[in-house]
Amino acid sequence: MSDFVKNHRALKWRAGIAVSEVDYLAVEEPLEIRLGGRRFTLTMRTPGHDEELAAGFLLAEGFINSREELGEIRRLRDSQGRPDPNALDVVLNVPSAGLRERLQRNFNISSSCGVCGKTSIEALERRIAPLRSSARIHARALFKMPALMREAQAVFSATGGLHAAALFEFDAGGGKDEGSGQHAYDRNVRLVVLREDVGRHNAVDKIIGYALLHGKLPHQATLGGAERSRAEALSAAKGQESATCALTMMVSGRLSFEIVQKAAAASIAILCAVSAPSSLAVELAEEIGMTLVGFLREPNFNVYTAEERIVD
Amino acid sequence: MSDFVKNHRALKWRAGIAVSEVDYLAVEEPLEIRLGGRRFTLTMRTPGHDEELAAGFLLAEGFINSREELGEIRRLRDSQGRPDPNALDVVLNVPSAGLRERLQRNFNISSSCGVCGKTSIEALERRIAPLRSSARIHARALFKMPALMREAQAVFSATGGLHAAALFEFDAGGGKDEGSGQHAYDRNVRLVVLREDVGRHNAVDKIIGYALLHGKLPHQATLGGAERSRAEALSAAKGQESATCALTMMVSGRLSFEIVQKAAAASIAILCAVSAPSSLAVELAEEIGMTLVGFLREPNFNVYTAEERIVD
Repeated sequence: MSDFVKNHRALKWRAGIAVSEVDYLAVEEPLEIRLGGRRFTLTMRTPGHDEELAAGFLLAEGFINSREELGEIRRLRDSQGRPDPNALDVVLNVPSAGLRERLQRNFNISSSCGVCGKTSIEALERRIAPLRSSARIHARALFKMPALMREAQAVFSATGGLHAAALFEFDAGGGKDEGSGQHAYDRNVRLVVLREDVGRHNAVDKIIGYALLHGKLPHQATLGGAERSRAEALSAAKGQESATCALTMMVSGRLSFEIVQKAAAASIAILCAVSAPSSLAVELAEEIGMTLVGFLREPNFNVYTAEERIVD
Repeated sequence: MSDFVKNHRALKWRAGIAVSEVDYLAVEEPLEIRLGGRRFTLTMRTPGHDEELAAGFLLAEGFINSREELGEIRRLRDSQGRPDPNALDVVLNVPSAGLRERLQRNFNISSSCGVCGKTSIEALERRIAPLRSSARIHARALFKMPALMREAQAVFSATGGLHAAALFEFDAGGGKDEGSGQHAYDRNVRLVVLREDVGRHNAVDKIIGYALLHGKLPHQATLGGAERSRAEALSAAKGQESATCALTMMVSGRLSFEIVQKAAAASIAILCAVSAPSSLAVELAEEIGMTLVGFLREPNFNVYTAEERIVD
């Protein structure tokens, strides 16, 4: 029995006959994240990879801009000195004035900007750099992603009740392979990490946290508005165009505004989903130049924005 | 074209051929809720039924205990005096000291209690009365609920990308019908309201808000810990046992802790889902005596807790 699954006796009615049987439930537990000992946030999540969740959440929500700003992540201890499975304390390497500003900015975005979608998008734009990645990926290479996800998900299939998110790495440029005649980036779509969680946003935070902790992000900055000018942000983003290795993210289910925002904070230029994006997800992706792919199920998919990154 | 759907031109790849076509996106927009003019919360939701969403959110999260405590719900106006489609202001009939206490209590629960699931549950228990409803429902009557939901959902089927939640009313007691020989409560499962939303929690808040605004809740109280003693809460809940009409809630997809918590705040004793509950959903339901039904798909379902309310 893994940490992801708990036993519970249920009364199972099957065509009129009720039998008491053990059922397997996806584990949901709260994780408390503290910053320097102070209560910060609480999320209901599938236990496991909590350090990734904390690191990814802090980057995706704009509280840190880089690996360097993330100090130690420690498990809290209870009064008997035992590690607490559901509470972490994160020490940041951010000057307190800068952190105050980011907390304030984040508060403004989440609690007051959204009089209309446009306003939200403008507020976010100030902290998210446009994605200028010149990465290209072949249409047929996209189909490898759901298949690789399914393989990796087979491990967790006991309850079936989890959202999945995965990162893929692919060779963003390069000519044809002499032997096969294929473009290098067709053959080299690699699963970097897959996480499953009761909350889709947690699964996304975990894979972003994994990428941050393993030095996999294209560039580690969410480029805060007041901290870096738009012009700087643009030029930093342009500096990424020479990258030879790019990241794509894929999620099970649908794409909301929140997922696009998180992927953008991690500078991921191609975001795919098994199902549909929402209107606001598409609007934000359009604004920042993210390629949004929906209904990715071989042999079909839809490209909603920045379609130039998908080539035939 | 309804308010729920927006047009967007997408590049559709179909077995190697790319065609630019109009696609339909589920609309996602932020709703800002103010309390007495002050910024309170923001949620990304499907527009429509915003008053229900605000009312349901306030009840489900314990900021109000009854219809009487909910004053006026007004649409904010922009500088030109036009109604803002994405912002509401709610006036509460709650003394300011009481409201301060509830805001504080809610803050404590959401930001600090959750060192372990047990602690969360205990914190919630202090504000949620145990569900002592003596309502009984026939197993075969349960199957009417998904069918009624599907019928009502057909209206919104353009994008398929929404979560649904519905309330049903059924006769909780009574003998057999002379003519048909059926129990009265078998024939009388009635759909009260169905709402669809990009967020499952919003769909649930909307149906709870509908019930609150239409006097449909079994008893309108979340029974705050410091405001009412546990003993009072118990006796109030027992007073409901004579009710002849009971409510059940059904959601598409899965049951999380959050959904159980919201249903409990609305004193709904029977909660059903098309898919699986999480471990923490089951633990909370067990603690407060809520009947949790999962995988409700004719002719099967599972009962996880308080199974005595489902009779053969």
